[in-house]
Amino acid sequence: MDVKSDVLELGKRAKKASRALASLTTGVKNDALTAMAEALMANAEHILAANEKDIAEASAKGIGANLLDRLMLNTTRLKEIAEDLLDVAVLADPVGEVVKGWKVPNGLSIRLVRVPLGVVAMIYEARPNVTVDAAGLCLKSGNAVVLRGGSMAANSNAVLTEVISKAATGAGIPESAIQVVSSTSREAANELMRLEGYVDVLIPRGGPDLIKSVLENSRVPVLYAGAGNCHVYVDAAADLPMARRIVINAKCQRPSVCNAAETLLVHSSVADRFVPLAMADLTERGVEIRGDERVRALHPEASTATEEDWWTEFHELIMAIKVVDSLDEAIDHINTYGSGHSDAIVTESYEAARRFAEEIDSAAVYVNASTRFTDGAQFGMGAEIGISTQKLHARGPMGLQALTSMKYVVEGTGQTRE
Amino acid sequence: MDVKSDVLELGKRAKKASRALASLTTGVKNDALTAMAEALMANAEHILAANEKDIAEASAKGIGANLLDRLMLNTTRLKEIAEDLLDVAVLADPVGEVVKGWKVPNGLSIRLVRVPLGVVAMIYEARPNVTVDAAGLCLKSGNAVVLRGGSMAANSNAVLTEVISKAATGAGIPESAIQVVSSTSREAANELMRLEGYVDVLIPRGGPDLIKSVLENSRVPVLYAGAGNCHVYVDAAADLPMARRIVINAKCQRPSVCNAAETLLVHSSVADRFVPLAMADLTERGVEIRGDERVRALHPEASTATEEDWWTEFHELIMAIKVVDSLDEAIDHINTYGSGHSDAIVTESYEAARRFAEEIDSAAVYVNASTRFTDGAQFGMGAEIGISTQKLHARGPMGLQALTSMKYVVEGTGQTRE
Repeated sequence: MDVKSDVLELGKRAKKASRALASLTTGVKNDALTAMAEALMANAEHILAANEKDIAEASAKGIGANLLDRLMLNTTRLKEIAEDLLDVAVLADPVGEVVKGWKVPNGLSIRLVRVPLGVVAMIYEARPNVTVDAAGLCLKSGNAVVLRGGSMAANSNAVLTEVISKAATGAGIPESAIQVVSSTSREAANELMRLEGYVDVLIPRGGPDLIKSVLENSRVPVLYAGAGNCHVYVDAAADLPMARRIVINAKCQRPSVCNAAETLLVHSSVADRFVPLAMADLTERGVEIRGDERVRALHPEASTATEEDWWTEFHELIMAIKVVDSLDEAIDHINTYGSGHSDAIVTESYEAARRFAEEIDSAAVYVNASTRFTDGAQFGMGAEIGISTQKLHARGPMGLQALTSMKYVVEGTGQTRE
Repeated sequence: MDVKSDVLELGKRAKKASRALASLTTGVKNDALTAMAEALMANAEHILAANEKDIAEASAKGIGANLLDRLMLNTTRLKEIAEDLLDVAVLADPVGEVVKGWKVPNGLSIRLVRVPLGVVAMIYEARPNVTVDAAGLCLKSGNAVVLRGGSMAANSNAVLTEVISKAATGAGIPESAIQVVSSTSREAANELMRLEGYVDVLIPRGGPDLIKSVLENSRVPVLYAGAGNCHVYVDAAADLPMARRIVINAKCQRPSVCNAAETLLVHSSVADRFVPLAMADLTERGVEIRGDERVRALHPEASTATEEDWWTEFHELIMAIKVVDSLDEAIDHINTYGSGHSDAIVTESYEAARRFAEEIDSAAVYVNASTRFTDGAQFGMGAEIGISTQKLHARGPMGLQALTSMKYVVEGTGQTRE
């Protein structure tokens, strides 16, 4: 069978499964999540062998240590993945929630009820844990899922999906609720983007190339788990010791993630005092600095920040630093160059805090805290399937609720419209 | 200037305006809506002259009476359009609503706040009232709007937009909050679909050709104001006199709208009694019947329904009728052929009502009421910008809330992540 009909068949089976999934009780879904977690541990040897094969192939291709680490499974990591499924089982079931309900003058009762989206397709990088996390979150929210992971994780994903899918059907989940696209070709991804009528939402997680391809090719609704070009702005009225702690944390605590800060903006009235302190803090931690002219005047060792740098999510120990003359300039810079992910102000000024929170057009806006908190678990929402930087449907960490839609149920006694 | 740069400039101006719009007080927005309503009446002569020009050109092209009627303005209609703006002024401002708020263990305060989407682009048919309605709803929800109406209404839209835009800026609304794309070419529409970074959501309202073009070309997020292939299912346990009233209302009260019914499904156990009654009711009202074999056995005058008919939104006095042997068959037919808009069951069976409400995958599911109620005003939500049949972001009538997004505002005292 060719890739096109193969993906179409997956889509059809997923749509069929989604009808049955929508009506499952929470009890059945939770039992299945538990069975999936148990099956992962029971099949650990089989899973780790498949992963070793992926690792060997990736190493042979000369893949970098960072990517290899993301790809690698071991017993501890597999246990954590299994525990994530048990954590999802504990979360409240979003399906069936009556979001609101009222009566209209003619006597009709209207309820707005939360329902699954239907079929979720996900295209993501070579991280096997995402395979299991996505399957668990989609199952709990009553959706069928079609997974298309990175090619480097193909062996791991095939075995993981086989194991959890079998455990799920054994616990009463319909066949084809969890499927993986076996081809890791670009063609297969493109077909998935064009399955209108079968895929209710596509969640792409990956770099600029994937996002560009989705923009060009997708015909199905998309939830971008977007990039994060995040900022910390140290205001004129900042508590400078607090600002130092926040800048260090936002940049250095885990530089490879999307909520790490990339650009530091400093108000000119505190630049003379703050920039040298921040430079020392950052360089001491191995951060390469790219500064504008005023930063370089204070610290000539810094290289010159280019226009490109203000747009860049470095994802590593590099930070661009710019001196600004006003809150307006800071807000304007962030709204221009930022990706609408997470941005922070450090200030003791009520007015500056209020304006920053209102005017910054991002999923998460922080006052006096690190950008690193944009995360489903940190927000107390439980596991997330990604962090949305788009404005439709879901913004910020996407938990179970982001995987649902609504419908109106209208009950009458024979009402007709005049 | 060519169309491409022209549309890009509109987008840039709209994005700039959207920043200022987001922070406007409700008072300023309501004053502007009132000023816009007054300006429409004060400029009635000018507006009606432009509309006459559109009507004359459309008539010369031999446009049908139905479309001409949608295009036509007169003093009464203009007054209604102005009153619609005043109705929007009365609606609660969605912007700034704290949807929820909580504290997490480390002391961070998190609020989920409703904010405007930013820039809304709308592509729609030749109905001048939509121009004003959309401008009013977008303004109240703090969005900039870029309008691209049907070419037949070009003169009307240009004057209407000029009048309301001038009134709005006079009342303190930023320049370029309400703009119209002057070119009604397909190229202009395509450019609007590709303005990523400037257009936060595109709302296409129109026929299958427009939807197809949006599917092929759009790179910006889309909210489809979709088609309605709506059904009434008369169950084995239906109150037949009620079923007759509902079928007549759903099909005949206003056949040209999206929530009118197109297909009638009848359970075989009541078909002998119900089909002849329904056929008489419908043919008496000028409805052409297309039936399956079992319907034609009961009423040989009916023409034969084709596979194509089950998929079709007739938008006129035609109804397809099919006899089904079970609730399952009815649900399966609707979920297969329907457009996920509005579908009704007529039944006195608790079990059938419950299953239909749960298993039909549509924006609005009715028990013992006409499908004709799917409408913002009928639901008590106020004016709507369209009815969504997609599952992301908004489903069913899209009022002010559908024109908003959310953001997280996180306030701390120096928190950093461990």
